[in-house]
Amino acid sequence: MPAPCTIGIDVGGTKILGLALDPLAPQRPLAEREVASAHGGANLIAQVETMVRGLWSDVAPRSVGAVGIGLPGLVTLRGVLRVGPNLPGIVDVDLLAVLAPTLGVPMAVDNDGNCAAWAEARCGAARGNDDALFVGLGTGISCGLVVDGRVVRGAHGFAGEPGHMTIVPGGTACACGRLGCWEAYASGTGLANLARRAAVEGRLDGVLRRIGGRLAALRGEHVTAAAVEGDGEAAAVIAEFARWVAIGLSNLANVLDPSAIVLGGTMMDLGAILLEPIRAAFAREALELGLRSHTQVVGAQLGRRAGAVGAGLLALPPSV
Amino acid sequence: MPAPCTIGIDVGGTKILGLALDPLAPQRPLAEREVASAHGGANLIAQVETMVRGLWSDVAPRSVGAVGIGLPGLVTLRGVLRVGPNLPGIVDVDLLAVLAPTLGVPMAVDNDGNCAAWAEARCGAARGNDDALFVGLGTGISCGLVVDGRVVRGAHGFAGEPGHMTIVPGGTACACGRLGCWEAYASGTGLANLARRAAVEGRLDGVLRRIGGRLAALRGEHVTAAAVEGDGEAAAVIAEFARWVAIGLSNLANVLDPSAIVLGGTMMDLGAILLEPIRAAFAREALELGLRSHTQVVGAQLGRRAGAVGAGLLALPPSV
Repeated sequence: MPAPCTIGIDVGGTKILGLALDPLAPQRPLAEREVASAHGGANLIAQVETMVRGLWSDVAPRSVGAVGIGLPGLVTLRGVLRVGPNLPGIVDVDLLAVLAPTLGVPMAVDNDGNCAAWAEARCGAARGNDDALFVGLGTGISCGLVVDGRVVRGAHGFAGEPGHMTIVPGGTACACGRLGCWEAYASGTGLANLARRAAVEGRLDGVLRRIGGRLAALRGEHVTAAAVEGDGEAAAVIAEFARWVAIGLSNLANVLDPSAIVLGGTMMDLGAILLEPIRAAFAREALELGLRSHTQVVGAQLGRRAGAVGAGLLALPPSV
Repeated sequence: MPAPCTIGIDVGGTKILGLALDPLAPQRPLAEREVASAHGGANLIAQVETMVRGLWSDVAPRSVGAVGIGLPGLVTLRGVLRVGPNLPGIVDVDLLAVLAPTLGVPMAVDNDGNCAAWAEARCGAARGNDDALFVGLGTGISCGLVVDGRVVRGAHGFAGEPGHMTIVPGGTACACGRLGCWEAYASGTGLANLARRAAVEGRLDGVLRRIGGRLAALRGEHVTAAAVEGDGEAAAVIAEFARWVAIGLSNLANVLDPSAIVLGGTMMDLGAILLEPIRAAFAREALELGLRSHTQVVGAQLGRRAGAVGAGLLALPPSV
């Protein structure tokens, strides 16, 4: 009789990914489902419930012992999603209150960055590290902190939002309405900002030619694609981007002194073309790195599944 | 028969403060000693040992159950001081290895910011808070983090050094050799930097007149003293300073989501003239403060004794 499995759901702005996991081998899902995200809180709850029941039937006759859900936004300690920048119109959604009674198993609801951090710390790139950060570089920056082997949630549940550290007072406008946030420089949005400035200043002519000179169409992907193909100007913009990423990582290292900094998110699908310049820049930016012999910057191992794996693992009782 | 007391020693760049404490009432020391700091690692160890033995005899016939020592610098998880910016010539000092055998009681050696944070969280301004930050504004910025009721040390013991977060890339030179650290803007040194710039730009004429127009002599204390006396230009520089402090506090709140941010250090002896502008600036800088109903910025309660009190408490077994 195999142990009960755990179900992990990762809610994103565009899609919802669900996994059924064996707690003893969570990196190899037993079942996987994905749907496009609907709008509105009620639809979100219905979609999650449908996906959980679907995964439950996928693994039958095996039982399900826990369900975890990761949400992209500020999630309280009681699992209520207060706001999510990529979930327009969804405010104060309490998945736990609706789903826990009907599902009848232990549930956890947490921020998606916390989930990804927990997954990478338990069975990914930071396995064996009690002090680890996950930093996800996508449209924005998601993050989760593990300190002394536990996820840090803070007093309200909102810990781990370094994307909105001010690193340039009065700097580039951020989606949050403030100026000079790390996310405005060191995310996909940040790379697009840097690329536009470089193009205007004539430092990205090759890339601009490829897209017909339409500055407004310039995106981060154009720069990374050109860098992969050996465009020197694009590589220079990537190096500039890497420095901005490293400034924030160095700030986090000064505050938390982790042994593993795991870089994930959709941008890191590019691999070494981003990871290596970020590592090099971190080695220049970090304070007293010579004394921090255990601190490593590594690429995530669980990829797009990290959030769902971590959500499933966070729902398990601590002893498992 | 009263419980054994604990001894806490706070080593600073200019003086060493020692307290004998009743663990049940640590805010009222049983004995107190202070000496000027000598130079050199061997002298430091001898001074600390002399002070411990002195305090021990001060409280006789009561017994001593533990000794804790706070050091101003990077202290490893095993209690070795690697480097301390205000302890010139003192590198890789292992107080524990020398003193633990001769004293024969449990000992703790930790960073002084960690000690102060622990003291304020246990019996000071953050009492009752499981998630608290201590930020000490003096010549530099010292700090300690309490998360989930425990001091955060990180993978090497170097957590809690936000003074060296980069908040202005390429900005003002910091004592650490890097550019644009928070400490270069939001410490006593930072206030002096801001004051000199204001004076050069003709925004601090009254203060400059008082010190005979000698720009090189201008210090932060001149600005705070003038602000206390109602000088509007000085108050404007204090407001500017408060914004820099708040930027760093906001960054820390985004990362750690504390319920209490305790401001201490020698600068905070000034009280409301600094605390109120910092609170006002934090309310403007912080992200989603409306959702962080528990987050308060408060003045430290233990003053110059915080480090020694916390060192003594950290040396106690966890159950006390």
